[in-house]
Amino acid sequence: MSDRIFNFNAGPSALPLDVLKKVQEDLLNYKGEGLSVMEMSHRSKTFDGIIKDAERLMKEVMNIPEGYKVIFFQGGATLQFAAIPLNLLPNDKKADYVNTGSWAKKAIQEAQKLEKSINVIASSEDENFSYIPYDIKINPDAEYVHITSNNTIAGTQWASFPETGNVPLIADMSSDINCRKIDVSKFALIYAGAQKNMGPSGVTAVIIREDLLEKSPANIPSMVSYKIIGGKDSLYNTPPTFGIYVVKLVLEWIQNMGGVEEMEKINRKKADLLYNAIDNSDYYRGTVKEDSRSIMNVTFRLPSEDLEKKFIAESLEKGMIGLKGHRSVGGCRASIYNAVPMEALEALVKFMAEFEKNNG
Amino acid sequence: MSDRIFNFNAGPSALPLDVLKKVQEDLLNYKGEGLSVMEMSHRSKTFDGIIKDAERLMKEVMNIPEGYKVIFFQGGATLQFAAIPLNLLPNDKKADYVNTGSWAKKAIQEAQKLEKSINVIASSEDENFSYIPYDIKINPDAEYVHITSNNTIAGTQWASFPETGNVPLIADMSSDINCRKIDVSKFALIYAGAQKNMGPSGVTAVIIREDLLEKSPANIPSMVSYKIIGGKDSLYNTPPTFGIYVVKLVLEWIQNMGGVEEMEKINRKKADLLYNAIDNSDYYRGTVKEDSRSIMNVTFRLPSEDLEKKFIAESLEKGMIGLKGHRSVGGCRASIYNAVPMEALEALVKFMAEFEKNNG
Repeated sequence: MSDRIFNFNAGPSALPLDVLKKVQEDLLNYKGEGLSVMEMSHRSKTFDGIIKDAERLMKEVMNIPEGYKVIFFQGGATLQFAAIPLNLLPNDKKADYVNTGSWAKKAIQEAQKLEKSINVIASSEDENFSYIPYDIKINPDAEYVHITSNNTIAGTQWASFPETGNVPLIADMSSDINCRKIDVSKFALIYAGAQKNMGPSGVTAVIIREDLLEKSPANIPSMVSYKIIGGKDSLYNTPPTFGIYVVKLVLEWIQNMGGVEEMEKINRKKADLLYNAIDNSDYYRGTVKEDSRSIMNVTFRLPSEDLEKKFIAESLEKGMIGLKGHRSVGGCRASIYNAVPMEALEALVKFMAEFEKNNG
Repeated sequence: MSDRIFNFNAGPSALPLDVLKKVQEDLLNYKGEGLSVMEMSHRSKTFDGIIKDAERLMKEVMNIPEGYKVIFFQGGATLQFAAIPLNLLPNDKKADYVNTGSWAKKAIQEAQKLEKSINVIASSEDENFSYIPYDIKINPDAEYVHITSNNTIAGTQWASFPETGNVPLIADMSSDINCRKIDVSKFALIYAGAQKNMGPSGVTAVIIREDLLEKSPANIPSMVSYKIIGGKDSLYNTPPTFGIYVVKLVLEWIQNMGGVEEMEKINRKKADLLYNAIDNSDYYRGTVKEDSRSIMNVTFRLPSEDLEKKFIAESLEKGMIGLKGHRSVGGCRASIYNAVPMEALEALVKFMAEFEKNNG
């Protein structure tokens, strides 16, 4: 039970130990009901309580105003890449997308594959996605603008969100939802796979302005329809019940920690510790422009690829996993989501100093 | 931990206690690796081993011949209702469907919604879906024939499968996969949500003849594309890792129990015990024609709806849940999937006799 390692995985990633302990405790017999949450009917009173709690907690934790619906989908952010244009972009209209890296690109490509018209209004591909193109020009007749609030692979994050006027703003927040306070009323739709800051993979939260639910056309698959899945309160078919239960526990944990305001303070402290270690060294080098740095995924390089290999190998020996950069970009990356404790950062920074000393 | 109840839920449903115990034991620290399966990267060596094991076990347990692929999807059978016509039914072709109840109907309606051409070649709706229409006439130019091998709500099950000649046979086996030995080579595609006989909800297994993978058109959502998800061995995006892990454990359990041959023997004994109790009584009445009876979902009525209410209420007091029939049909139903032990059936039959005696 003990001997847990420091988990810097990019996703699926660390979960709060308190949450895992609760899951473990109730695994064979949930609150004395004689069965596991996995074995419960999704139409049972108990599970209905769980999913309603999860929705309520999402609303409380994110301070979601009236007029929005929280829906749990399957299929990850990737299904939403299709769902968004299928539901919200008629074939004779256009939508604006900002290209800030691999995942933004996948959202763009999926819309294009579905034969939808897309404008890429800004991109940071010219500099390896190492910055956020804050200065964007939105087409006033765009059906929506799509951004990726945090870019897991590049290690960038929108520090502030664009003003889009009357054009609905849609954000993929898979890798930074609930890491900081945001103003939900600025968004028409926010979506996030759970497996970074909210729970296990297999659950995707969609926060959608209710007036948009009516836009879903009839001739799209039911499982991607905001109108159908939202209209049935995420219970059109059997949802991923166990995943939603864990999401509920994670949201409770955030609330007990003091909410996103407190999470943000801790996250900034954690990120500062690591960025300071990088900035105060000539050995480590950050890969991202300062105004675009992510507080969730910190990317950095060592003097050579050989040293990076050695660094990653030795970090594993020190009980730290997940420090290898994404296979598409190389280098090192520490994903420091909500559930990664300060001690993990302290251990990492200490190891970095030692490694530099021994390999300088 | 003890005080587990007898679980007759229709789905999500009972899981083997041995599986739940393993999940519980390894929840905080999987095999000494220092993290939960939920916290592992889906690209890690360990998870790769888990998902490969799950595929291998599916092939072994079902005796799947060469030339088939096992793919894990999200979205339940409902996503497959859309995926099948989107991948396999060009707009200028037709497919045959057999209507044996609510779920078959949903498959039909989803295809129609997607503006695909469907022939309903047989239906048992005329008699409340109380029988399997074994005698079907397949259109020789149909792209495929779709059947629902077991009908959870009606309590019917195909005792033998139709000969479809050159027309590919597709079956929704969500509620009876791995309950008995079948000849996979007769099918072009088999699909099943895991939440009845294989694991938690949120994972759907698709067993598909490999030549069909090439049929997927490019302009459909990636998350429903057999070519894309199959081509990436279920790892196109982050799969429901924890669910797949539990599926792997359930398949191991089936194998350790002696495989589907042995499961089938036990399942038939369990079903016989219950059907005999119904048949030997004038008080309880089966709702299904004898040659169409399901060995997974046993539906029955009492002399009156009031007595049914009382029966269900008292069964709960006796530690048995899930005996209420589906809300669309009423009556009683015992779902007796693989993981429901013989003792549960013995307790149920004993209770039925007592109830009849006290309320005859």
